Amino acid sequence: MQEDNPHGFASDNCSGVHPDILRAMTEANHGHVLAYGVDIYCQRATAKIQEIFGDDVLPFVVFNGTAANVMALQAITHRHNAIICAQTAHINVDECGAPERITGCKLLTVPTPDGKLTPDLIEPRLQGIGDQHHSQPSVISISQPTELGTIYSLYELRALSAFAKQHNMLIHMDGARLANAAATLGLSLREITADVGIDVLSFGGTKNGMMYGEMIVFFDYRLGRDFQYTRKQGLQLTSKMRFIAAQWEAYLSNEQYLKTARHANLMSQKLAERVAALPQIRISQAVQSNAVFAVVPRHIIEPLQRDFYFYVWDELRDEVRWMTSWDTTEADIDQFISRMEELLA
Amino acid sequence: MQEDNPHGFASDNCSGVHPDILRAMTEANHGHVLAYGVDIYCQRATAKIQEIFGDDVLPFVVFNGTAANVMALQAITHRHNAIICAQTAHINVDECGAPERITGCKLLTVPTPDGKLTPDLIEPRLQGIGDQHHSQPSVISISQPTELGTIYSLYELRALSAFAKQHNMLIHMDGARLANAAATLGLSLREITADVGIDVLSFGGTKNGMMYGEMIVFFDYRLGRDFQYTRKQGLQLTSKMRFIAAQWEAYLSNEQYLKTARHANLMSQKLAERVAALPQIRISQAVQSNAVFAVVPRHIIEPLQRDFYFYVWDELRDEVRWMTSWDTTEADIDQFISRMEELLA
Amino acid sequence: MQEDNPHGFASDNCSGVHPDILRAMTEANHGHVLAYGVDIYCQRATAKIQEIFGDDVLPFVVFNGTAANVMALQAITHRHNAIICAQTAHINVDECGAPERITGCKLLTVPTPDGKLTPDLIEPRLQGIGDQHHSQPSVISISQPTELGTIYSLYELRALSAFAKQHNMLIHMDGARLANAAATLGLSLREITADVGIDVLSFGGTKNGMMYGEMIVFFDYRLGRDFQYTRKQGLQLTSKMRFIAAQWEAYLSNEQYLKTARHANLMSQKLAERVAALPQIRISQAVQSNAVFAVVPRHIIEPLQRDFYFYVWDELRDEVRWMTSWDTTEADIDQFISRMEELLA
Amino acid sequence: MQEDNPHGFASDNCSGVHPDILRAMTEANHGHVLAYGVDIYCQRATAKIQEIFGDDVLPFVVFNGTAANVMALQAITHRHNAIICAQTAHINVDECGAPERITGCKLLTVPTPDGKLTPDLIEPRLQGIGDQHHSQPSVISISQPTELGTIYSLYELRALSAFAKQHNMLIHMDGARLANAAATLGLSLREITADVGIDVLSFGGTKNGMMYGEMIVFFDYRLGRDFQYTRKQGLQLTSKMRFIAAQWEAYLSNEQYLKTARHANLMSQKLAERVAALPQIRISQAVQSNAVFAVVPRHIIEPLQRDFYFYVWDELRDEVRWMTSWDTTEADIDQFISRMEELLA
Repeated sequence: MQEDNPHGFASDNCSGVHPDILRAMTEANHGHVLAYGVDIYCQRATAKIQEIFGDDVLPFVVFNGTAANVMALQAITHRHNAIICAQTAHINVDECGAPERITGCKLLTVPTPDGKLTPDLIEPRLQGIGDQHHSQPSVISISQPTELGTIYSLYELRALSAFAKQHNMLIHMDGARLANAAATLGLSLREITADVGIDVLSFGGTKNGMMYGEMIVFFDYRLGRDFQYTRKQGLQLTSKMRFIAAQWEAYLSNEQYLKTARHANLMSQKLAERVAALPQIRISQAVQSNAVFAVVPRHIIEPLQRDFYFYVWDELRDEVRWMTSWDTTEADIDQFISRMEELLA
Repeated sequence: MQEDNPHGFASDNCSGVHPDILRAMTEANHGHVLAYGVDIYCQRATAKIQEIFGDDVLPFVVFNGTAANVMALQAITHRHNAIICAQTAHINVDECGAPERITGCKLLTVPTPDGKLTPDLIEPRLQGIGDQHHSQPSVISISQPTELGTIYSLYELRALSAFAKQHNMLIHMDGARLANAAATLGLSLREITADVGIDVLSFGGTKNGMMYGEMIVFFDYRLGRDFQYTRKQGLQLTSKMRFIAAQWEAYLSNEQYLKTARHANLMSQKLAERVAALPQIRISQAVQSNAVFAVVPRHIIEPLQRDFYFYVWDELRDEVRWMTSWDTTEADIDQFISRMEELLA
Repeated sequence: MQEDNPHGFASDNCSGVHPDILRAMTEANHGHVLAYGVDIYCQRATAKIQEIFGDDVLPFVVFNGTAANVMALQAITHRHNAIICAQTAHINVDECGAPERITGCKLLTVPTPDGKLTPDLIEPRLQGIGDQHHSQPSVISISQPTELGTIYSLYELRALSAFAKQHNMLIHMDGARLANAAATLGLSLREITADVGIDVLSFGGTKNGMMYGEMIVFFDYRLGRDFQYTRKQGLQLTSKMRFIAAQWEAYLSNEQYLKTARHANLMSQKLAERVAALPQIRISQAVQSNAVFAVVPRHIIEPLQRDFYFYVWDELRDEVRWMTSWDTTEADIDQFISRMEELLA
Repeated sequence: MQEDNPHGFASDNCSGVHPDILRAMTEANHGHVLAYGVDIYCQRATAKIQEIFGDDVLPFVVFNGTAANVMALQAITHRHNAIICAQTAHINVDECGAPERITGCKLLTVPTPDGKLTPDLIEPRLQGIGDQHHSQPSVISISQPTELGTIYSLYELRALSAFAKQHNMLIHMDGARLANAAATLGLSLREITADVGIDVLSFGGTKNGMMYGEMIVFFDYRLGRDFQYTRKQGLQLTSKMRFIAAQWEAYLSNEQYLKTARHANLMSQKLAERVAALPQIRISQAVQSNAVFAVVPRHIIEPLQRDFYFYVWDELRDEVRWMTSWDTTEADIDQFISRMEELLA
């Protein structure tokens, strides 16, 4: 295999498709099956999901992560509701206003030090309940891992869940990188979602070796009762669904998702270790998944980006983000560190 | 290659992916490239599109055909506009209300004998122009081929286009099966779109051998100026865009799209010939692309569906639809006809 | 009182405010009361409504009739639903696409001879139930009287209601001129709404002597549970609500609504009698409320409009609409008929 | 005139209608005029507006202030835009999410000490320009006076306007109490809007003696070109428009708006003076219009509200808001202060 596209640290979605997943897609490419979800591949993928999360969950595939978030939120809100999320949440920052536009809801954003919501941070936003002039908060949306690479502990998740129940709200989890959280916590996907009281999950695979096709899992099937229509109307129903289903089956078989996530996490640990040894660089968030955030000397940013593209997270602070992926190698890290050493010299 | 999924005539989206296209996707699976459209595969696909349609067109990929239609229409309308379409149009019948919900516009639907709009059919709907109580018609949306398998001639397209210009309206073409129309007419894709005055095209590949990923082509780039935001907010921006781009590059190279479309069309001609020879069956629409519509004795429908699934188009009239595909074989037709003969006997 | 604005037959909303209603508004103009519905005038209006329709109904005032229709429909639908209505329905023809835009639903329009839906006319539109590609019909919306001035009998309303229940749908009634229907039928407002199974009513007063402020009545309070938020978000919450409430209290007291409606109906009967005696004019709809539809010689339309403005209903057929109002006088009719006689001579 | 509804300090929309305005409405109640804006009263109101703001402005009446804000913003944005506003803005806090729901845009909210935006406060929110993942800021929305009763100086308005132009953004002004700002600044309505570069104004009258009906003024008529449809679709077209027009004509004649606004402002000054003399109470915002914000001992709030209802602005700080109105009297203030003195004693 020629390797014309070198690895970088811009994002885990710059990587390609894991060979085992691509193989599963190829193997699904046989003759005719009915479109729109009525095929054996979809049945098998659903069975996998239910094996992992429980028999009474209701899963639906959509095309991408933004759709998984927005459609899940639409399904569990009314247009006059508000959705509470961290100021750094993907739904607030990176979805071009799709959550507001499509759900009709207001986002109540909460500043956080590390991307993680807590009951104490949320409580002050619970105002105007029952007052017709105010959007009524009904959902807490959290990201696991967060956009800052940090991870909620079981304890923290349970506290949020109890708080939500107490205030008659639901919890949505943006799990675009959920496998990385499971890998770090050493817990099953179910233990960190359904078992702690998450109501709806956006379950991502694309950033961890899939090609396209994210999943929404309703842990209470009643929440997803009409979702087939919501999905179609939301432009998220794929005709040749077998090719998404085949990916999911492969992804969830033989702990495939865990192997790739563990690898990506490990690469971040190694990168962080190496970075920590460099002068003038400060790691700015706890490295708990496959992201390293660091504050770096401004003068190295552009030259380093020319060789290894990555994103500046906060221009005012010169904070950058480096993501590792399922296919990041130690050699990639070596080269990256070498180049940084040159530039810092 | 095992062939566990037999061919039928339910829809061309029941078929899989053409091997040449799957190969192109596999070849794109190398290392890292930037996500969201900034990669060499996207550049090459864009170049192909511009080679075909002209240098100043603006193409955008989205996930599926419903999205291609709805997002294209959103881009060229205001919420107080009306969109004129045939009553049989996909946007009216098969998109779960997405056009209304997402564009905010009203659909003004026109009954037609054959799925084709004409100036004479449209004219009576142009009422209330300038009256604040009425949605203002601003777009004519046509399907080429139509949902009934019929095809607009160049003359008919030009007449519609002239009518639209005269009434200050734009024309959108739902080209989910555009290649089949080009194959039938023996004209280039450009000759049946840009050259006859189409303003925006939904260009499909999935029904003709692709896996996923349809294209919107703005023939006047100004219409698509802000479309990158519309696409993202519309949940249609894929991160690993190279895998859609690679499909398009392969689809548009070496007349791949034409070969598969011609084959599917030919299979419909053969099927129609064989069906015409059967007693008690009446072909109900001109067979001009890869669809055969027929009125059949009610008693054969269900038993025939058990072996070869297909859709009943009009229950009241016992009219059914049979679609051929890029992978339909003469043997498929033989078996289908044999079974019908048995049932009719 | 000077009379600088002569009466015509264009619409009942060309008339002003009944003096008794204006007096009630003036009497409400005392000192301060809390805004947004928490005042003694609102309490009294609500009491009137409950006296008329029953204690457990839930009424909400909004600004105008389009809002009453659209907000009521939004409250009882999901965005993937379809609303079945007559092709002539106000929600289809005269609301600039607001129903689609705001509810997100598709309108399934039914051609009718007289503006009235029947189970037989509706049944063919109930297709694709349970199919994710199709908007799911969930509401039948009828107008009483219809936009053609015709009136559903109790029997017809019960048949529609039974049909709706049988198909798990709700019924919305656009009662912009409900009082006129009650007057014709000689039945109470409750007998022609709640008692025949209407679920939600848009109850109008503006066309019958009020200034502004229509009402939505939920006959099952659970349907309106969150409506206070829907109303506010729908831009329909008035601060100085006492001035709408005072109108409603006056309108519903002493059979005020019935007196004005009876008068308007009577004037239509008289107008119809006089018109019927004219040569070359054909009354084209049954005259059952305060509208007269007639087909007239084309050459008289414009000259007649110059003196007495009215609307052409169907340009192709030279069908016009003449509305009478609570303040139409016999002298108005005399002058109108005289002018027509001149023009026909 | 009996005075059964005593005056309070809850809000200026708790007051009734100024007698001169009610008289104008009564005088408009003559015979028939065409509905929907084609009448002599509307012509005269438009003439007044153009006399005040300039001949080429385009005014439209809508029902209430939330509608004036939201419809104005919809008219000048695309759904992928962001609207920058103060965190305290009415559009952010008090409109039940209508701005997001109806415009489709994201609100980018800015914390401020006094409700006033400045270029320095806005600048950090201008991120992601040209990046398809981010809502694109295109409008700055300011309130004059602010929700905290403070007033932008001409200098501050010009600075914002220059900043907006420089960044290719438009400025919307929420002028629900614009007359109060004009009264304080001693400048004309035009000098504080069109002349400083405001693009669209929501011009309120209800809080200053009108009954209902706010106005949107487009200072560049091209921005309002299609607004008649936007208004109708937005449920904001009143049939008997003469009754809103008559209010506006009266409001804008003989400096009526200025007289009532000056009075309300003066009453706030008097109230503030009296309050300042009380022990244990701290006025917390500059008193520049008809609002007094104060931090008060918690124990007096509830008993005081029982006699004179008002709103707690910030529960955590025990900050309350007292609004004066066009009909507030010195006697009202005397009684209010007396009661406070009792409670503080």
